[in-house]
Amino acid sequence: MKRIGIDVGGTGIQIGVVDESYRILAEESIPTQTLIPFPEQIRAMADCICKVTEKAGLKTDEIESIGAGIPGIALDDGTVDKCTNMGWDHVPFRAEFRKYFKQPVYIDNDANVAALAESVAGISAGTSSSVFITIGTGIGSGIILNGKIWKGFHGIGAELGHVIMRLDGEPCSCGNRGCLERYCSATAIIRMGREAALKHSDSMLNRFCGNDPQKINAKMVIDAARQGDPAGQKVYGTFIEYLSQAIASVVNLLDPEIIVLGGGVSKAGSFLLDPVRERYKQYIVFNDLPIPDIKLAILGSEAGIIGAAMLS
Amino acid sequence: MKRIGIDVGGTGIQIGVVDESYRILAEESIPTQTLIPFPEQIRAMADCICKVTEKAGLKTDEIESIGAGIPGIALDDGTVDKCTNMGWDHVPFRAEFRKYFKQPVYIDNDANVAALAESVAGISAGTSSSVFITIGTGIGSGIILNGKIWKGFHGIGAELGHVIMRLDGEPCSCGNRGCLERYCSATAIIRMGREAALKHSDSMLNRFCGNDPQKINAKMVIDAARQGDPAGQKVYGTFIEYLSQAIASVVNLLDPEIIVLGGGVSKAGSFLLDPVRERYKQYIVFNDLPIPDIKLAILGSEAGIIGAAMLS
Repeated sequence: MKRIGIDVGGTGIQIGVVDESYRILAEESIPTQTLIPFPEQIRAMADCICKVTEKAGLKTDEIESIGAGIPGIALDDGTVDKCTNMGWDHVPFRAEFRKYFKQPVYIDNDANVAALAESVAGISAGTSSSVFITIGTGIGSGIILNGKIWKGFHGIGAELGHVIMRLDGEPCSCGNRGCLERYCSATAIIRMGREAALKHSDSMLNRFCGNDPQKINAKMVIDAARQGDPAGQKVYGTFIEYLSQAIASVVNLLDPEIIVLGGGVSKAGSFLLDPVRERYKQYIVFNDLPIPDIKLAILGSEAGIIGAAMLS
Repeated sequence: MKRIGIDVGGTGIQIGVVDESYRILAEESIPTQTLIPFPEQIRAMADCICKVTEKAGLKTDEIESIGAGIPGIALDDGTVDKCTNMGWDHVPFRAEFRKYFKQPVYIDNDANVAALAESVAGISAGTSSSVFITIGTGIGSGIILNGKIWKGFHGIGAELGHVIMRLDGEPCSCGNRGCLERYCSATAIIRMGREAALKHSDSMLNRFCGNDPQKINAKMVIDAARQGDPAGQKVYGTFIEYLSQAIASVVNLLDPEIIVLGGGVSKAGSFLLDPVRERYKQYIVFNDLPIPDIKLAILGSEAGIIGAAMLS
């Protein structure tokens, strides 16, 4: 049987038909429209499901289940909360879908869904437990334990980005201070990069941003570090140290079989992976025993559809 | 059927027979002897098991299983590692017990065992997930998920005390800096209490320690705070703030059904629980949704035997 996976994003909604081997047989997308009423948003998704099912050469009743990954909180009763990008708060997601389909409808947070995708069809396939960390503007995370998503008893867990990493530290958008994502995200690289560029006007980093530190992005810092710029190397080295300590904290607490890194910053590849693998060991309490390996995610943007389709 | 629970401690080993209702039917103890060879230590425990079984009016073959909580790492193959109090490193615990008993022998870390005890017979009985935090000289922790101990894939998890809480912070005995137990343990209260007593020579806190800050213990700080001493209140308030943030970090990541606090500092009772319950909410990302309750452990020193007996 085939399954539908829906990847709900702030700019577009990707919908695909996924087969038993986790391949996407057909894919369609619709723009995210936050200004139309919620029932109409769901109707647009339902129409798209019919379209993509037909495109895959299937009838709707050949679809086993429908799953959706959303950038917010998915509660057990099928409602969606805190999905600010979509303007959804306490919306009856599952109930609304039930108007169009008789199949089971599953929903979960998008980072959890990506974690599930990697653990069934990606780099962590075959493992029983993993923690997936997306390093982008913020830090997203998904926890897989005994082959299943662990999102917490109340559905508010897997928010690694808001584990406090520096008491009384940098202010965070959540209202607290010192959250992990203030030190381990692309935003952190940019913040530290700006300070370095201002301080070192003759640096390669400052040249990369056209002498305008406000224009710095994470890639500029990473490129400068890769090319040997001392200012870039110092910022990137600090970031690596923070990320290594964050991963070690996850391992000291949860010790999954494997840690998977995804998100924009993970595109740095081995320039990210090699130093983190090396550095993180020293922060593990029992580091002379076997410890989790760290690997890079491989499914990229397909993780959203595949993971959503695998929800159960 | 009845089960044997063994609580291995640095000064004594408590052994008890536990019934189906988690009651301790009979209990015996032997002193911890680290200078005799490991097989003789196990033989002494085996003798004690026979004695306590007889004391309970039972025959050895009426015992269903034997479980032990040890202050170290228990690996799946039945060996014990890093049990420094006992001088055990990579000792064949289960294999050695098999010389005396045909019953299954289970082992786990003592904090995990206490977490299990509370979750079957204590304050968290009836919950499916909990995190147990012991606040003593250090910070111990045990994680229960879906009714079972989660000690990690490699057996090195549930070390909440070594989650990094202040980048580049206080040095920790583990070799790293800024570990959570440097801010949330009795040791942290003592460290901050000493500084406060030195600074405020006219404080009640300084009087409690006889003007010798080296003699300060956690109880003196808590008592001074309770009696309204500004120096004591400031230290205790800071500790409450740190502990609240630590618990919030656990909840933001794991979101168990309940948080259970045990260990020496938890004897402060509602003077600990009330402010932590109040303060920790603000550090939860989604704190307008239902969040875990925080409660105090109730089994005390019996948790070691009861939890060990319940291992499976």
